[in-house]
Amino acid sequence: MKIVDMRLTPIAMADPPLLSSYGLHAPYALRTVVELVSEDGLTGAAETHGGDGPLGDLERARPMVVGRDAFDLSRLWLAVGSQPFGAGMDAAPERGAPGLPAQTYILPGAGRLDAPLRVFAALEVAALDLIGKSIGIPVCDILGGRTRDEIPFSGYLFYKRAGGGGSDQDAREDRWGEALEPTAIVEQAKRMIADYGFGSIKLKGGVFPPEQEIAAILALRDALGATVPLRIDPNAAWTAETAIHVGAALAGALEYLEDPTPSLAGMAQVREGLLDAGDATPLASNTSVTSFADVPGAIRSGGVQVILSDHHYWGGLRAITQLGRLCETFGIGLSMHSNSHLGLSLMAMVHLAAATPNLTYASDTHYPWQDAADEILVGGRIRFAGGAVSVPTGPGLGVELDRDALARGRARYDRCGYRNRDDEAEMRRHVDPGWRRVVPRW
Amino acid sequence: MKIVDMRLTPIAMADPPLLSSYGLHAPYALRTVVELVSEDGLTGAAETHGGDGPLGDLERARPMVVGRDAFDLSRLWLAVGSQPFGAGMDAAPERGAPGLPAQTYILPGAGRLDAPLRVFAALEVAALDLIGKSIGIPVCDILGGRTRDEIPFSGYLFYKRAGGGGSDQDAREDRWGEALEPTAIVEQAKRMIADYGFGSIKLKGGVFPPEQEIAAILALRDALGATVPLRIDPNAAWTAETAIHVGAALAGALEYLEDPTPSLAGMAQVREGLLDAGDATPLASNTSVTSFADVPGAIRSGGVQVILSDHHYWGGLRAITQLGRLCETFGIGLSMHSNSHLGLSLMAMVHLAAATPNLTYASDTHYPWQDAADEILVGGRIRFAGGAVSVPTGPGLGVELDRDALARGRARYDRCGYRNRDDEAEMRRHVDPGWRRVVPRW
Repeated sequence: MKIVDMRLTPIAMADPPLLSSYGLHAPYALRTVVELVSEDGLTGAAETHGGDGPLGDLERARPMVVGRDAFDLSRLWLAVGSQPFGAGMDAAPERGAPGLPAQTYILPGAGRLDAPLRVFAALEVAALDLIGKSIGIPVCDILGGRTRDEIPFSGYLFYKRAGGGGSDQDAREDRWGEALEPTAIVEQAKRMIADYGFGSIKLKGGVFPPEQEIAAILALRDALGATVPLRIDPNAAWTAETAIHVGAALAGALEYLEDPTPSLAGMAQVREGLLDAGDATPLASNTSVTSFADVPGAIRSGGVQVILSDHHYWGGLRAITQLGRLCETFGIGLSMHSNSHLGLSLMAMVHLAAATPNLTYASDTHYPWQDAADEILVGGRIRFAGGAVSVPTGPGLGVELDRDALARGRARYDRCGYRNRDDEAEMRRHVDPGWRRVVPRW
Repeated sequence: MKIVDMRLTPIAMADPPLLSSYGLHAPYALRTVVELVSEDGLTGAAETHGGDGPLGDLERARPMVVGRDAFDLSRLWLAVGSQPFGAGMDAAPERGAPGLPAQTYILPGAGRLDAPLRVFAALEVAALDLIGKSIGIPVCDILGGRTRDEIPFSGYLFYKRAGGGGSDQDAREDRWGEALEPTAIVEQAKRMIADYGFGSIKLKGGVFPPEQEIAAILALRDALGATVPLRIDPNAAWTAETAIHVGAALAGALEYLEDPTPSLAGMAQVREGLLDAGDATPLASNTSVTSFADVPGAIRSGGVQVILSDHHYWGGLRAITQLGRLCETFGIGLSMHSNSHLGLSLMAMVHLAAATPNLTYASDTHYPWQDAADEILVGGRIRFAGGAVSVPTGPGLGVELDRDALARGRARYDRCGYRNRDDEAEMRRHVDPGWRRVVPRW
């Protein structure tokens, strides 16, 4: 089944002013929609990182894609993997290493070294959707078959400034309001659980001094009870000493402690310190471990008990099923990281989770922070029940692009003015002109 | 696509009197052919371990198979993996550990702990053949796409008694003759290269005192030249000290040194000894590493540079593609082990090798030791050119069962009298009534 066309559509969607150690979310989040068209007129689609960089890389891959059989993915990777994608991006050769200037702490998956994997992943997902639509089989079944019919996600809490995201004609209602204190975080959690049914909760930390974030987690535990697993992720904003202090303060309250400090050496130091204090809470990472190349060191370090995978930059769906086997082999847990995304990415995550037996944690998703007006799928937003999304039984990813909605996303991209993600700049623009990312900050 | 029937056909084929540290090959080798029939009348097939044990295990899996969708393989593994297959077999919990009685050195993949993986692997291959035939796609493309069109195999030399295998009406011509001395081994190599075009050569050792086998390898190098990579595999017949001596004597002559000694600790000792002697020849294993459970220890030990995989007992084709990623991640080489087999197993290996990018060594195969009269495929024996088999482009595995030949294999099974493989017993019967396997022997 020959691929005769590749359509790339850059889109923007409203994004609320969420806070993290990286800074502040801009009013728009950027994504790219990749469509592969087969000679018999079928289309497979995928959603990936947005902005000019990822878009340009995908465009440069066009000669490797058009004319190729949709099943010919191993060779597509050999072609893509040998190309110098990611021009102009930071290389991130020492991702997460302490003592480097802040700008080297790039977002997971956004480095130059990740670029070929990111390009291939988007093409692979679109090809698998195309294959599935061609043979009438869901993507999860092409990957090896579903081990579960419902995919649990975790409610993803953020410290947040007031505002709903977008601007002018794209401005969205602020359904969440400002959330800067533990009480507001608890309200956010309750509302998110009421709306989506999430059975576990993650707080994006690294925004306020650790004592304030400890208080937020303890308030969540008090409000939600011990049956709701909690996670906190300061994106490496703490020193190892601070992380041990926080971990000890939250002993017994966390399902896992995510990226408390930079670097594998730091993570290992935190792990040792917590074990010494009698706390065996697993440490999770999507900062010190962002590719297969990081895995041997992560395992040797002893500082990572759960790898937070992301098919968008680990090299696609099959790569994560392979990572799943690797993690199972070494007794490492597996969960899923998320960036701001729409339903097309969500459904790729759902199929992948269905086909990855040892993905036993509820996955992250930013999905509740996006607005129905920005969804690009026929039928609108994906529905959650009990915090989970049902694995589709239809062909491919089981969803279709709404072409009008996609065109609106494209128009929004054209007029929004954003072409890459820079949370640090946004923080300077709206909060503190002198703000810069400091890792570790506390 | 529902599976409505599973057909199991035990077969026997003539096998010549090949020697190894396990003993002597019996006149017959046993295999089982699994066929899965879909509701629309298509059939997918796989070949696996033979004899009453594997046959009984597969029969016990029938309720988990019939009625299931052919794509529903993750859940099939969940079902099979939780069952106590392998009743009566040695558990092999300490496979390859030195100091155990010889009978605990069971054949790779033939232990009780391997049984569920062996059952699932056969079912998975048959299901993938069925899926491929249903959607018109080769199995390698279902696995992720081919990275190569020709799959190289290694010529597999054996010390051999005179005789062609089989008996009575199944007796086969001895095309190879006796081979007990280096000169005969060189003749065997030359003839095998002439017939098949193999570009690399493996000698099954562990049969004669090490000096004699060193002489055979050096004679092969002299006769074939330095451009033909050589391997020797004594099946753990040597102490670590002896292995270091042999390795040093063959420094520069080997592509890899396979299972020179029992246990990961022994392998690591050999590796250290050889490195100390300035010899970095990789060590390969299918004795100390026979499952994913062995991999972390193998990596930690430093004693295994190449894992010799076998989809028949590692859990199928997808499992080996996952092992491939794991090996790539840790800088471990990957090759393929083989038991006596026919063309159906060979074609599964070919599709798997095509879809496993970092399987960069020529794979083992016993195929030259089997006779055309025993092949079960339409069109007869698989053809080699330049030591390689072309990856088929037709649906599924790209081959069809010859039902008459299969029936003959079944009749041969019924009358041959063998129901399990016991090379030690065969050695006692034909060579030395007091013979027993001793590991390490030298």
